[in-house]
Amino acid sequence: MDLKEVRVEIDKVDNEIKRLFEKRMILADNVARVKAETGDSIFKPEREVEIINKLTRDIEPQIEKEYTAFIKKIMEVSRKYQYGKTLTMTDPLKIDFKTGPVERSEYHVIGEEKDICRKAYDYEMISEESFDDIAKVILNNPNTAGIGVMEDLGIGVSDRLHTMLINNDIYINSCKIVVDNNVRKKVVTFSKDLIVTEGDNRLKLMFVCPNRSGSLASILSMIADYDINLTEIHSVPDRSEIWNYFFMIELDAAFTEESTKALIYQLMNETEAFRLLGSYKC
Amino acid sequence: MDLKEVRVEIDKVDNEIKRLFEKRMILADNVARVKAETGDSIFKPEREVEIINKLTRDIEPQIEKEYTAFIKKIMEVSRKYQYGKTLTMTDPLKIDFKTGPVERSEYHVIGEEKDICRKAYDYEMISEESFDDIAKVILNNPNTAGIGVMEDLGIGVSDRLHTMLINNDIYINSCKIVVDNNVRKKVVTFSKDLIVTEGDNRLKLMFVCPNRSGSLASILSMIADYDINLTEIHSVPDRSEIWNYFFMIELDAAFTEESTKALIYQLMNETEAFRLLGSYKC
Repeated sequence: MDLKEVRVEIDKVDNEIKRLFEKRMILADNVARVKAETGDSIFKPEREVEIINKLTRDIEPQIEKEYTAFIKKIMEVSRKYQYGKTLTMTDPLKIDFKTGPVERSEYHVIGEEKDICRKAYDYEMISEESFDDIAKVILNNPNTAGIGVMEDLGIGVSDRLHTMLINNDIYINSCKIVVDNNVRKKVVTFSKDLIVTEGDNRLKLMFVCPNRSGSLASILSMIADYDINLTEIHSVPDRSEIWNYFFMIELDAAFTEESTKALIYQLMNETEAFRLLGSYKC
Repeated sequence: MDLKEVRVEIDKVDNEIKRLFEKRMILADNVARVKAETGDSIFKPEREVEIINKLTRDIEPQIEKEYTAFIKKIMEVSRKYQYGKTLTMTDPLKIDFKTGPVERSEYHVIGEEKDICRKAYDYEMISEESFDDIAKVILNNPNTAGIGVMEDLGIGVSDRLHTMLINNDIYINSCKIVVDNNVRKKVVTFSKDLIVTEGDNRLKLMFVCPNRSGSLASILSMIADYDINLTEIHSVPDRSEIWNYFFMIELDAAFTEESTKALIYQLMNETEAFRLLGSYKC
């Protein structure tokens, strides 16, 4: 066969696979309906491993890795479809948020970051000794916010700011990029509420990857399958040793969109320690 | 249908899809043979987009994203299979490397990092002013190596060390983790040669993601499909503005293994500005 003939054959096979794919999605819809009624979870890793083992039993070794990747993908998109279906049937996404913009009476900053933060935000700022001190003020007074450097672009994320956000359930509400010593830095405001303001185009979140091979890749593919782009990704080994590694990612997405909600619902179900870290415009 | 009946149907569909998948891989093998003869490239993004557009034309909107993700995966694993096949037919991977271990006469370090580097390596070290100065010494004298802090785990990568590696074609040869002020730091040695030593279990590399939606996810899935784990990932916006973003990743892999070589071959072909940054044990 020459290349042209092979391609005609590939087209035929692709069309046959398409019909079977459609059939499988209708079956997935059935599964979603039953599970929504019984409250059963969509993602069952053990059952998936079982199916993979069964299906790969008689596959030729030279295409085994390819076939395994392929059926994992069928299962992934099947789950994606089921999460979307479930969201239209029930309202399982329980996330408290306020709508902005919000006026603040006070902004708190750690002393050493005051000059940089001033470049980004033109507010009066009260100096504190540490991010822990800022967290205390914010949690006790809903009318206050903190300001800090979240990230030096090209160098790394601020460990202490992220630790403070995570440990105290504090959310990023706005973000500005300033240039300091030739380094672009992301300066953010944060408070005790998740605030979604019209025009927000970034969603920051963290999760821990389940300890399975390829789980990060599968989570990032999942995000891509929603047609949502990543704008940042960082892997962070946890010093408290409760988790091994967590990931902080920034999405080019608005919380109010249906596809974003479906993605968040899937991430809440398929990652560990999932947490929203903020919504902002950048 | 109850869940049990649905699952019996799903099993049937999966088995039919499996037969078609096997058929498609045989066709992909044919494509690989023709392309190896003609030197044609395996990855043709425009042709793939064409096929996707054609196949999704008559698909129901509610499963369009799922189906698109699914056929992209078929193409991905088909390419993976073709790269592997091509590697067995020709030797397209032209990477110069030496085998270690190598004795060095001199080690150079920047003054401010000397104390930390001493915690990792027990060598005499000559202080230099900057990484550029170290690079000059290394490039002019193959018997020397540099030592520096590559990464503060949990905080970020060293921008200036990576810039030096990238700009001067310098490779990491060994790595040790030390604890400094409660922060775990990766201290590395580097030289002008890529040196592969028996027992190396880490491969560091960088690439630029093609500017297409989901391209990072697709690259990470590709890595996962080779059964190779990521140990680190960092996205770095480039200040020179030649690239938008590049990615630095560390793989749990040995350069000498066939599957690692096939992955590198695929990455060289499917990413931009691909570069190996080193092989070491960690």
